[in-house]
Amino acid sequence: MKTAPEVCGTVLECLDKSPEAVLLTDAGGRIVYANEAFERLAGCAPGEAAGKTAAALSKWFDHPESPRKELLTALKAGKEWSGRVPRRPSDGGERLLSVRIAPVKKSGAAVHYLAFARDVTVEASREKRSAEERKLEALGTLSGQLAHDFNNLLTIIIGSMEMIMEEMTPQSVSMKLSQGILQASKESAELIKKLLVFARRQDGAPSLVRLDAAIAEAKPQLEKFQGPVHKLSYDLSRGSVCVKLEQEQFKQLLRNLVVNACEAMPYGGTIRIAAYEERVGHEDARGMKDGDYAVIEVSDAGRGFPPGALERLFEPFVTTKPKGKGSGLGLSMVYGIVKQHKGEIIVDSGSGVGSAFRIYLPKAEAAEKARA
Amino acid sequence: MKTAPEVCGTVLECLDKSPEAVLLTDAGGRIVYANEAFERLAGCAPGEAAGKTAAALSKWFDHPESPRKELLTALKAGKEWSGRVPRRPSDGGERLLSVRIAPVKKSGAAVHYLAFARDVTVEASREKRSAEERKLEALGTLSGQLAHDFNNLLTIIIGSMEMIMEEMTPQSVSMKLSQGILQASKESAELIKKLLVFARRQDGAPSLVRLDAAIAEAKPQLEKFQGPVHKLSYDLSRGSVCVKLEQEQFKQLLRNLVVNACEAMPYGGTIRIAAYEERVGHEDARGMKDGDYAVIEVSDAGRGFPPGALERLFEPFVTTKPKGKGSGLGLSMVYGIVKQHKGEIIVDSGSGVGSAFRIYLPKAEAAEKARA
Repeated sequence: MKTAPEVCGTVLECLDKSPEAVLLTDAGGRIVYANEAFERLAGCAPGEAAGKTAAALSKWFDHPESPRKELLTALKAGKEWSGRVPRRPSDGGERLLSVRIAPVKKSGAAVHYLAFARDVTVEASREKRSAEERKLEALGTLSGQLAHDFNNLLTIIIGSMEMIMEEMTPQSVSMKLSQGILQASKESAELIKKLLVFARRQDGAPSLVRLDAAIAEAKPQLEKFQGPVHKLSYDLSRGSVCVKLEQEQFKQLLRNLVVNACEAMPYGGTIRIAAYEERVGHEDARGMKDGDYAVIEVSDAGRGFPPGALERLFEPFVTTKPKGKGSGLGLSMVYGIVKQHKGEIIVDSGSGVGSAFRIYLPKAEAAEKARA
Repeated sequence: MKTAPEVCGTVLECLDKSPEAVLLTDAGGRIVYANEAFERLAGCAPGEAAGKTAAALSKWFDHPESPRKELLTALKAGKEWSGRVPRRPSDGGERLLSVRIAPVKKSGAAVHYLAFARDVTVEASREKRSAEERKLEALGTLSGQLAHDFNNLLTIIIGSMEMIMEEMTPQSVSMKLSQGILQASKESAELIKKLLVFARRQDGAPSLVRLDAAIAEAKPQLEKFQGPVHKLSYDLSRGSVCVKLEQEQFKQLLRNLVVNACEAMPYGGTIRIAAYEERVGHEDARGMKDGDYAVIEVSDAGRGFPPGALERLFEPFVTTKPKGKGSGLGLSMVYGIVKQHKGEIIVDSGSGVGSAFRIYLPKAEAAEKARA
């Protein structure tokens, strides 16, 4: 549509105030126009952008996974580009921008580039978390169904075998074969028990407890599971928050996290276990639901997980350990128990800097506390 | 930054040509400015938008799943809103827009609303497809691992039981118990076989065949599987395209699709099986990889899948059928076989209008054809 001069002014004024970052450069990348949101995103002072080149100004593309090359290739070919650009702003953290850049052409040649950008960190984290949940939900359904079917089979086998063996001559070939069957069946039944934990098919009566007390109660058991070269260090001073827990499952959860931490530090080290409260806000960058949580943190100074491993950490039988080491079900069980408690897990891990598992359980209401 | 009048003109000119739809309204929703991309998206003629109200002009929010209410609530509260808006444009199909709308305020009151919109149909389909693939991949890994473990167990049990039973008195209690064990184990082994198909752990030597010939070869077998009240109708006239197939697996695939179609039409009807070629372009709205495909289409006029069922269609044991009917593994096997052939599946289904399963297999190269 034809734009009257007074409309021009209005549009520009609104564009200036828009939360969407807008940038216009000439064909050589020199900035012709940048609105306030762009200057905020780029981390420069108001009015600082004009006249500079986009490349000099922005550190938008210094992230190791930046799609810089792909973007430049598209623009050089006269095409528009849109995609997600990861950034590490100077004030820390990791942000994700959704960026769209298009050449504005005259007689076939690009005379300007117009770019729009917005921060989609929260949105992207939520999407990722929810895809992850759907995947693990589906794995839980499958595990539960299979475990149920095979449990029925093994119940028949183990029960019948025990009766059959009562009639057998000791030391006979049949007896030995039967013992083999019984042992293999019992081993499978153990595996199935673990799968049922992942599938959240454990019974249990949760009760209202103080988090620090629940961890303290698990201490003697955890000491049995720590390796000879490992030390457990507790910080429960901020852990007086109340939660609803099934104590046996909670111990199982801690045990698996401790075993995992020990395995991450084969040459020994200290495993830290902390408890505290945390309020998660509306726009949580990790995509978590807002609310008040009781947090259990188990961290090691081990080798950390290799890139890509985090995404599959809780899947059954997916393990970063050497073949034959560990069932690949430990962290799956942790996931199942956390979900059965309507909680969340956040894992921070970097190659060489160790891992921290943070279990977020819904904080019990004051009213519930009073009733208990 | 302060904007000189000549810069204003340039920005507006570029905004006009931008592929990003931009819309500015006053506080009452009357359109002050709309760029060309907006007019295209909204389906109105150039210049037609100005002066109208946004509500009267756009049919953007008449989709049953439109987040219209959520958007209006946010704007009324003086907040910005961003999200995805599904649309059914007049030329058919279903599109998804990413929309961001923000009030521009003066002294605390909204005096304008500025909106940005882009079509993210392709991007969203790709994301959805890839999350779906990751989920089914994880389910495949789990199934494969469990099937492998239990296969080993059942091999021991079945082998040992057969030896033990040779030594037993016929008609004894032990013999009867043993027969029970053997039968239950064999049933489980059957289940495991199906899971291995889903997990893509079938051996096989694919050969180069013409699609129409491969389907024709399966005909006699398919007739055995169709119900007494069903008819099979073939359209193979456009199916002379070459593909690499493992013929036994391909028959299994067709069989499962036919069984599924029969079950969708419990009172009878015609199942149509067609074969043809299709070229999928770069920006496929379903999120498929571009390329030349050989397509097998199996369609019914049955009850269709209820909303939400499509997303879980290929997961093992997830079935829309009444309890006890079907193993819930038929379509999982179809998925496994298609993936083993590096293919894709597209399912179109609507409640009451029937379902169409389209299997896309990579078309074999002419060079391969010559070599064969």
